[in-house]
Amino acid sequence: MVDATPPPADAAIVLIGNELLSGKIRDENAYYLAGRLRALGVTLRRVAVVPDEEAAIIDEVRRCASAYTYVFTSGGVGPTHDDITLPSIARAFEVPLVVDPSLEAPLRAHFGARMTPGHLRMATLPAGTELVRGDDFWWPAMVLGNVYILPGIPQIFRANFETLAPRFQGAPFFLASVYLDADEGSIAAALEALERDHGVAVGSYPRIDAQADHRVRVTIESRDSATVERATARLLDSLGAGARVVRVDAAAPASHPDQG
Amino acid sequence: MVDATPPPADAAIVLIGNELLSGKIRDENAYYLAGRLRALGVTLRRVAVVPDEEAAIIDEVRRCASAYTYVFTSGGVGPTHDDITLPSIARAFEVPLVVDPSLEAPLRAHFGARMTPGHLRMATLPAGTELVRGDDFWWPAMVLGNVYILPGIPQIFRANFETLAPRFQGAPFFLASVYLDADEGSIAAALEALERDHGVAVGSYPRIDAQADHRVRVTIESRDSATVERATARLLDSLGAGARVVRVDAAAPASHPDQG
Repeated sequence: MVDATPPPADAAIVLIGNELLSGKIRDENAYYLAGRLRALGVTLRRVAVVPDEEAAIIDEVRRCASAYTYVFTSGGVGPTHDDITLPSIARAFEVPLVVDPSLEAPLRAHFGARMTPGHLRMATLPAGTELVRGDDFWWPAMVLGNVYILPGIPQIFRANFETLAPRFQGAPFFLASVYLDADEGSIAAALEALERDHGVAVGSYPRIDAQADHRVRVTIESRDSATVERATARLLDSLGAGARVVRVDAAAPASHPDQG
Repeated sequence: MVDATPPPADAAIVLIGNELLSGKIRDENAYYLAGRLRALGVTLRRVAVVPDEEAAIIDEVRRCASAYTYVFTSGGVGPTHDDITLPSIARAFEVPLVVDPSLEAPLRAHFGARMTPGHLRMATLPAGTELVRGDDFWWPAMVLGNVYILPGIPQIFRANFETLAPRFQGAPFFLASVYLDADEGSIAAALEALERDHGVAVGSYPRIDAQADHRVRVTIESRDSATVERATARLLDSLGAGARVVRVDAAAPASHPDQG
């Protein structure tokens, strides 16, 4: 019998905006989405931050759309001259731009005589764009093929993503963490053996700040909960006298740090 | 007479680490460096986050090194199996790996009989790597051509960068901000004219959260202070009755938000 299970989904995020590159604004959206995709079982494989420039947007979106299951863009969909995400994505996929009546109508209703060409550009989409509406904001998520076009304003970005989120649900990751008072180099061989023998993903994150109660956090991950449990037990057994266990977070579904 | 002024420097940042892509750790380093490069007059043109995988690191570092004046990498220089930045960069530039005695010696002095192959890998560098030492940490910044190889731990990343920072100093950017109670679309044409007529970079950043005292922040930037002042005065003159000025930050050298 042929195994019909599709390969696990992966994803890339493209953040569009000079304000991120100039350090004026700190990214909220990639950090939020990284954790949410993890919780949904989607492997995020790349984040890129590009300026408000057509060539840079086209190049990055095209590359990611051909390489990953899902691409999420953030930013550049407002009414000003630097909002060029929608026309750039249209060029990336060589489709024309068309005014969407379901976006134009509420803009005209709201602005009336004050409606500007900038406002109309917000309703001018790559042909074939699907609009997905949620409950929180009137502004919809936009989908063109495997590209999800979201606005940069964090509140709307999150609301739009959560409207879409059920369609990304896959097999979740399970994660255990072992916090150690140990030199990272002294446990390196044990960690490598763990990854090799148990097929888990092992991470090792040193801390040198005084606030931390540990010197290294070791993470053990897999889509199989029992595998994480076995690998965690093996690690705890294999630690030498130089490594003191501070605490252990047992295997649990990976979730976003901000979401408990 | 030929103008011998070199073009302004630009830069890219490559963050290396699965922990950023899985949402376990929030980036500190790209945000810090974006602001510091801005303050130094260097234009950051790209940030990429890639996993701990040789092919992804090679591809991104090569691409950035050929396209930008400076490339900064963060992460992947520790003693564990997932620390593969140094061998990956060696392969990217097709140079051999060599053990650096000035790094090996302090590692051996510190670890003695507990020295592991992982520790030795920390001292195994692409041939030709320059080491730049500062006062705060014994771990040096590493330079290979136009690639600056920095560790992921934020305290050391910052210290290493600050040791190098004087060599990146260029003509600074000047920045003014105009905070408005206005609909962004209603000022779009004025902003576009400003950018076109004054040769300044204009940004427009809407806020919808209740904490903000404004609805749009307009930023005006140039390397010439007087130009920023003229463009700011023009903007304030050109605003219609629908836009109320909440406050203005006059032209000043761009600095990092965390650094006053």
